[in-house]
Order: sequence, then structure tokens, then C-alpha cells
Amino acid sequence: MVQGNHHEAMGLHFVMFLPTLYSQCDPQQSKKWLPLAESFQAVGTYAQTEMGHGTHLRGLETTATYDPATQEFVLNSPTISSIKWWPGGLGKTSNHAIVLAQLYTQGNCHGLHAFIVPIRDMSTHVPLPGIVVGDIGPKFGFNEVDNGFLKLENVRIPRENMLMKYAKVEPDGTYVKPPSAKLTYGTMVFIRSLIVGESARALSKSCTIAIRYSSVRHQSEIRPGEPEPQILDYQTQQYKLFPLLATAYAFSFVGQYMKETYHRISGDINDGDFSELPELHALSAGLKAFTTWTTNSGIEVCRMSCGGHGYSRSSALPDIYVEFTPTCTYEGENTVMMLQTARHLVKSYRQAKAGQQLSGIVSYLNEATQHRVQPQPVAARPTVVDINDLASLVEVYKQRAAILVELAAKSIQQEIQNRKSQEDAWNNSAIDLVRASDAHCHYVVVKLFTDKLGEIGDIAIHSVLSTLALLYALHGITTNSGDFLQAGLLNVPQVHQVSVRIKELLSQLRPNAVVLVDAFDHHDKKLNSVLGRYDGNVYEHMFEWARRSPLNATEVHESFHKYLKPLRSKL
Amino acid sequence: MVQGNHHEAMGLHFVMFLPTLYSQCDPQQSKKWLPLAESFQAVGTYAQTEMGHGTHLRGLETTATYDPATQEFVLNSPTISSIKWWPGGLGKTSNHAIVLAQLYTQGNCHGLHAFIVPIRDMSTHVPLPGIVVGDIGPKFGFNEVDNGFLKLENVRIPRENMLMKYAKVEPDGTYVKPPSAKLTYGTMVFIRSLIVGESARALSKSCTIAIRYSSVRHQSEIRPGEPEPQILDYQTQQYKLFPLLATAYAFSFVGQYMKETYHRISGDINDGDFSELPELHALSAGLKAFTTWTTNSGIEVCRMSCGGHGYSRSSALPDIYVEFTPTCTYEGENTVMMLQTARHLVKSYRQAKAGQQLSGIVSYLNEATQHRVQPQPVAARPTVVDINDLASLVEVYKQRAAILVELAAKSIQQEIQNRKSQEDAWNNSAIDLVRASDAHCHYVVVKLFTDKLGEIGDIAIHSVLSTLALLYALHGITTNSGDFLQAGLLNVPQVHQVSVRIKELLSQLRPNAVVLVDAFDHHDKKLNSVLGRYDGNVYEHMFEWARRSPLNATEVHESFHKYLKPLRSKL
Repeated sequence: MVQGNHHEAMGLHFVMFLPTLYSQCDPQQSKKWLPLAESFQAVGTYAQTEMGHGTHLRGLETTATYDPATQEFVLNSPTISSIKWWPGGLGKTSNHAIVLAQLYTQGNCHGLHAFIVPIRDMSTHVPLPGIVVGDIGPKFGFNEVDNGFLKLENVRIPRENMLMKYAKVEPDGTYVKPPSAKLTYGTMVFIRSLIVGESARALSKSCTIAIRYSSVRHQSEIRPGEPEPQILDYQTQQYKLFPLLATAYAFSFVGQYMKETYHRISGDINDGDFSELPELHALSAGLKAFTTWTTNSGIEVCRMSCGGHGYSRSSALPDIYVEFTPTCTYEGENTVMMLQTARHLVKSYRQAKAGQQLSGIVSYLNEATQHRVQPQPVAARPTVVDINDLASLVEVYKQRAAILVELAAKSIQQEIQNRKSQEDAWNNSAIDLVRASDAHCHYVVVKLFTDKLGEIGDIAIHSVLSTLALLYALHGITTNSGDFLQAGLLNVPQVHQVSVRIKELLSQLRPNAVVLVDAFDHHDKKLNSVLGRYDGNVYEHMFEWARRSPLNATEVHESFHKYLKPLRSKL
Repeated sequence: MVQGNHHEAMGLHFVMFLPTLYSQCDPQQSKKWLPLAESFQAVGTYAQTEMGHGTHLRGLETTATYDPATQEFVLNSPTISSIKWWPGGLGKTSNHAIVLAQLYTQGNCHGLHAFIVPIRDMSTHVPLPGIVVGDIGPKFGFNEVDNGFLKLENVRIPRENMLMKYAKVEPDGTYVKPPSAKLTYGTMVFIRSLIVGESARALSKSCTIAIRYSSVRHQSEIRPGEPEPQILDYQTQQYKLFPLLATAYAFSFVGQYMKETYHRISGDINDGDFSELPELHALSAGLKAFTTWTTNSGIEVCRMSCGGHGYSRSSALPDIYVEFTPTCTYEGENTVMMLQTARHLVKSYRQAKAGQQLSGIVSYLNEATQHRVQPQPVAARPTVVDINDLASLVEVYKQRAAILVELAAKSIQQEIQNRKSQEDAWNNSAIDLVRASDAHCHYVVVKLFTDKLGEIGDIAIHSVLSTLALLYALHGITTNSGDFLQAGLLNVPQVHQVSVRIKELLSQLRPNAVVLVDAFDHHDKKLNSVLGRYDGNVYEHMFEWARRSPLNATEVHESFHKYLKPLRSKL
């Protein structure tokens, strides 16, 4: 879950505490809690993850046991590993937490439910009895957030503190089920869709900084005797940055698509129609992993492409990285997400194979099972791909995905034939399953980028975005050329043509590179990067920035008197 | 250059200032400076990099102009971009700096030379006239080091402050050349060789933490109803970590080899025999880049494989990363290093093609040019590779390198035929050149790992290390399968067999994984990681570590009184 998406101590109050109250309080609860939370008398966070459990929610150990004698829930952290761990603002800032716990009543466990637990006195802020709460210590980043721990020792809260809009516990302890388990599902999908947009934002910021700086920085020589060229003129620098620039555009369009799709479907969900939810769920899981992984490594490529200065916090790139990298882990760990998408793909594949007609994005699996697409020697396949035609490239990405889904499904089949259980067969095919999901997501991104071009009327913009889309698609082929060759989708001369064509596209994009990052429209104040300044006056401002370093507050630092002088006198 | 390889303010005094004095002072200078430096009266650093210039040394702008009237050098930073930038300990700690500057005398520029420049008063530590010095501000890491800036404004130093063991300036301003330009070359090679060993150390530490923790952490379920398995039992987790474990072993052996080779050759160098230096220079450049890039991304894979807890500094992984990542940039930026290696490869290729018989590691290019190895359709090539035989795999890596060197050389040729200048042809082939260097380094690593096995007598150790070597080689084939297919070195069924075989190797390594990291012998005190503890008592110690967080010094943090109370009273 979001453990501090907002980079401030009270972030979780706004991002999780209040929204959860809005969506999961019954009318009576709303009347009590909303005024308290809105006036900051109750400052809260959302405590789900435990020291020993994250993505696998069913494994959470915190218990809330109903006591009908007093009409209270008794909350406990039965083990060290059950201590709540990571929630933003939990350590020092919050006086309440929405705690996710296994609900026990009348001797039965009913799984995870949410409870409002007061943790500190609202007027003195001192922790309440039975509450052990504190900060979890220094982290890679998020230093402004007091991510915290919470250990519950027989903490009693009134029955009314269980969030009761859907599930309920009656005063006598009778448990009333929620109308649909799929309701919480929607929020997860929504947040994962938002993360796709965050990937686009982080990557476009990083590209803005690196590409602007690469046009300011001069280094070495291409032709002896001539002035040092802008480093953006080096083919290697273009090869690092332009595919990422194309990716940033691709992810922006995918992020828009996910948001629109979510809003389209959420109307249906409110009307009780969940038919499109599984596909959106699978897509948001996979794309969350696909885009965050790519962006995560992409930020670092941008940082290192700025040489030593990328390592300075004046570049802003170290901060972008440490704030972004948790997205690979939270809201569902990426590998687990890829496997969730794979589950949907394999299920769809089997349905298609059983004769069912699939609709939506996975409909390509209909053809796959009909045509018995499978790997075969390159030489044996016809060559119909036009590497300059995006529609043709979307087609090969689709076929690659289909083949890799089939390969994964067959690997599972093979394992089962070798007398493995369903579960072991699944685990022993996990590498293939992740690979299939990755190919599926890659196909979706290439397709959505290509679809987007159809909406663009302006000829000049259409032209440059087509170049970017082509670069994105061809670069993906080069970095995964083994897949395309193995599947016989491209032949050896074509793969060679792809790398030649990429070089041409790099030169073609060079004159537009700076305006293409300017178009992301990250204001200097938001970018907060000396290297990525819009005006390009990097060096003067770097010197100015350095002079404001805290260590420069005094000409002679105290360490001289404290350490160097005594050291000398000892010799 | 090393900008704080030692993680402390006085690191550069020991790593660069003293060694440079030892190696570049003439006898008279030694007599004056060594006692001062050894008693910490003179505390120094090494100031080479400037704000506007790093790897391209010839571009450095700082000037030292000899004035025969006073027998002094006058040092200047003529532009903002010429301000010395990054040297460790320069900001606040040092009172001297060895400054690299363009030497001007009698109206001529003689290129870069080293000068001892006093920057702060030795007793008061106040900056001297004409010296503007300070800290460059917060960075990604290295927070213990005051990396600094230095602006020189007509700073006069006596003639004797130029380091004169090799080059000299006579009192009248006559310049005396050093006996050989290759002498400084050796140090660079030595330091780059050491970095290969540092890669091995950083990666083996990261693997130790991630693999130990993965055997402590239980999560989700493989078989329903059974206890949650160790996450190291998941195929995806093994696929993340075991190839990196194999890589850590590979790099350890390569690091040893580089050190031994350097010492073997340095005897020859001292005797004036530089014949092996170009090859060692090329190899150290490429392997520095190859090993640091792999390690850099590998550390992050290890960190993220630990889930959320990897993000906590209690894991030690964030610190390992921020301390390691500058190696990709300093001592020669990695892409520049790869291109240096490529220059040697293309030169050797052309020599072989001209009929010269190459010796040493590049001797495989003899065959390449004889047999006219080149890409051809997969189906057309004979299949003789045994994917279980390391010698056979060394051979395919070698052939891949030969083919990619040839491809790069041909790309240059093609560009020249298209009327491009030599230099533009080189730049327009840079992607291919880096790819060739990468393949060359990959071959060297696979070869050295395989060679090492021959030295191991113990059967059990030989067996498990052979498994690791095989995994290293096969994993490299999978991740670069396009290269091997494109070159016709492997066919489609073989590439499929490789991925099946990798899965078997992962299972085979599972029982030995923890002992294989224990064997790196990183002591708990050095590892300093709660997740990577030898005894596996992770959760208790994580709780203990958290409770010592600075934010937990008080139960009620001052922010409650300072911010929350005033905020409430305003509503």
C-alpha cells in the first residue's frame, strides 16, 4: 500500500486516512470521525504492511478479537514479525491509525478488516497504553517522512471503531459479510494505474535534465582541432537518452489510457458490472511493474549520462531516484504483479484453446491457439514485416506475446506431465511466465503509442511523435532480438536493418531533442535541478548552489579544531 | 580520478596526496614535503577534475604560467568551468592540493603538469590570498567526504612546487620533457584493475545480504495450506540472485587476475619494456566499465529482491549502492572506457587483416580475419556447441566477440565509403564499438572463470564452482541470445535448451546458495546489515535497530508542538 506517496509527514493523512474514512465509514461513523480528521484533531495513517508481510495480504498476523462482554475489539501483535512496519507518518506524526487486522468473532476468523485505532493522546500526543510506536530509522530516501512501527498489546477499542460500511459485527458478535469482495479490488487497480502515470512523470523529468544538460556540456573531440562538441552529439549519448525519451512519451500515453479506462469502467463497477475488471486488474498489475522497472533503471541511466555532476544533489536526479524506486515494491511487488498478469494470460489462453472466443486486449490469443503459432527455425518463416511501418511492428510484438504466453503455458503442461503438482508446475515455470507478461505489456505499450498517433492532427507533431514511436518499437526489438529471432518473427538481415535504422532515427531526433523535453513542461521550480535549467546557465548556478552548502557556513570548519589539531599534537 | 575512494574526509590524503608525493617528487622535494605530509602539517588532496571537464584530460583549463622574473608559477582558473570540482577533502579538510594545470613557459603550452599549491594557512587553516575554496554541497552519498571546489586567482607558488621527478622547468623557464609519457599510464591501469576487485566486493556483499535474507523471509504460498516458503524457493527469486552470485565469483577471479597481471607487467614497465601495456590498458578500461555497470545494476536487483526492507538503511544496501555507483563515472567514464577498449580491438583487427600475427588475448582476431567469420543465417551453420561444456561455451563467446569486432570495423568502413571523415565514421559506429567491447569483456570473464576451475583440486568445490561458471555463461547467452542467434553460433533449439538448463542449475544451486555467500567471508561488522546477519535473527534486530532511530530520542517529537498544535488552533 502507499507508504508515503506524498513526500511529507502528513501525506498519508490526506492520501489514505481521510479517503478511507470517506469510503468505508457508515453514516454514524462519518458523523463522528470526519470532523475530527478534517480539523486535524485526529491525524491518521493507514497501517497494513507488517515487518514480516507485505504483498501477501492473507499472511498478515495482527488480530482483532471481538469481546461481546464489553462490546470491544482487542487488538494484538502476536509476534515480532506482526509489528506494523513502514506506514508513513506512523512513527511520530499520527495519533490514529487505520489498522488492518484478522477479524475473530464467535470463534471464527473472517479475514482482514479495517479498524480505527487511537494510538496517541489527542491533546498530549503521548502514546496510549498498550501501544508501542516509533520511527523505523533512516532509509534510502523519504527522509521527510516518519515511516513507523506499531506494536499492539491488548489494545481495546469500541465495536464502533471497525469500519462498517460493508462488513459488520453486530453487538452480540454476529458477523455480517460485505455485499461484494470486489469492491476493494477497484482501489488497488486505480492506484496501480496512477503509478503508470508517475513512471511517465519521473522518466520525463529525468530525460529533461539529462538532455538539456547534454546540450550544455561540451567534452572531448569528434574532429581534432575543432571545439569540443555538445555531448548530445555523441551517438552513444543519443543511444542512452533518446530511447528513454521515446519511452517517457509512450508511458505518458499509457498513463492517460489507464486513467480513462479506469474511469470508464468504474461507472460499470458502481452499477455492479464487474465484467471488465479482471482484464483491467491484470493490465494494471503488469503495466505497473513494466513501467516502474523501466523507469527505475532509466532514471539511473539519465543520472550517469550526466557524468559526475549527476551524482550531486544539485542535479535533482538522486532525489528523483530515491523517491521513485519504492514504486517497484509498494502497491504490489513487481515480480508478484507480473505473475498476476501471467495468471490472467494463461487462463485466457486456456479458455481460447477450449474454444471460447476472447475479447479485449487478450483477444490475440484466439489467433495464437488457432494458428498454432510456435517457435520454428527462422529460415522456415515467411518475411512480411516492414520495419518502418508501425502497424506491422505492433503485429510482431503481438505475435511475440502470443508465442511467449503459449511457451509459458506449455512449460506448465510439461511440468505437470512430469508429475509435478499444479503449484510446483507454476513455480517451475515462473521465469517463462514473467517473460510472457513482460512481452504482453510491451505489446500493449507499442500498440497504445501507435493508436495515439491516430488522434494527432498536426502534421509536424505527428511526424516527430511517429519517429519517437518507431524508435521505441525498434529499440525494444534490438534489446529483445533473441525473442524475435527465436520465434521466427524477424530474420537475421532484418535485425541488422533494425540497428542501422535506429542510428538513423537518433540523428533524425537530435535537432528536436531539447524541444521534445521542453514539451513535457516541467517548470524549473518543480524540476529543481541546476543541470536541467531551462535557460542552460548551468555552471554559474552550480557554483552559486555549492556556495550555499551547509559546510560553507564557516570558512574554517570545526573539524579543524576538533580533530586535526589534536591529531598533530599527538605525533 | 579517485574522488574519495576512501569514505572519509582525509581519504584522499592517503590515497592520492601522499602516493603522488612519493612517486613524483624529486629528491629535494621529497625532503621538504614528505615530513610535512606525514606529520599532517600539510594535509592534501589531488585536484584534477574541473567543473567543465572530467574524463577528457586535455580539455582541462586551469593554467600555471611560469614567471622567470620571480621564479614562480602563477595559477589561474580562467573561467567558471575551470574551477576545480569534486576532489575529496578539498572543501574544508585540506590545506594543500596537488593541482593539475596546463603548463605555460616561454610562450608555449606543454600540457598538464602537477603542482603543489598551498590553499590554507597551515596554522590557522584560513584560505590563502587568491584562493576561493569550499564544499560542493550535498550528494547522493559520500556524505562523510567534503568534496570541494577551488578557484585560483593569480596564485603564485615557487618554481620548486612543480613536481619535478620527470618533467622540469629550469629557473630561466626552459622546459625539460619527461623521459616517457607512458609512466603515468601505469597508475591509471593499476587503479582501474583495483576497481574490478571492488566490483566483486560490492556485488558479493549485496548477494550475501539478499541471499541470507531470502532464506529468512517467508512469504505467500506455493502449495495451498502449507506454511509460507522461504522466498529463496521461488524460481523468480533464484533467477534474480543466483546469476549475480555467479557473477560475484566471476568478478573475484577476474579481479585477482588483473592484479597479478599488473604486478607481472609492472616489473617490465620499470625496466622500460612497455610492450604488454597497451593490451593491459585496453583490458583494464573495458573490464572496469563492464564490471562496474553489471555490479551497479546488480546491487539494485539485490536491494529490490529484499522487498521494502531493502529500502531501509538497516539493510546496508542503499549505502553499498551510493558508495559504489560513482565507480561507473570516475577513473574514466564507462562509455569512454568501452570506446578505448574498442579502439584497441579495431586496431588489432586491422593489424590481423593486414597479415600481422596477433598475440595475447586479442589473438582470436587472427582466426576471425582468416576464416571470414560473419553473420549468416542460423540454418546455414553447423551446430557443434555443447551447452554443458564450458570450453565449448568459451569458444562461442570468443566467436561472438570476433564477429562483433568485425561488424564494428565494417560499420566504420561503410561510413568512410559514404564519404564520412575517419572521426565521424568512428562516432557513427560508436554503438557497435561499445557492443564489441562488451562482447570482448564478456568473453574474457567467461574464459578467466573457466581457467580458474583448472586450478581447483578439491572435487566438491570444483563441482559447485563449475555449476556457477556454467550458470554465468548460460545466463549471458540467454540475456544476449539475439547476438548468438544472429551470428549463427547457436540455433533456436539450443537457445531454448539453454533456458531449460538454467532452470535446472537454479534448483541445483539452491541448497548451496547460503554457504556460497558465507564463503565470501564478509564479517557481520563489515557487512553492517541487519538483513544480512550471519545468524539470521533479522526481525528482532530490525526492531532493536529501529528503536535507536534518532527520531525516537523523545516520545513526543518537537514537531507536535511546533506545527500540529499551531495548525489546529488556526482552524
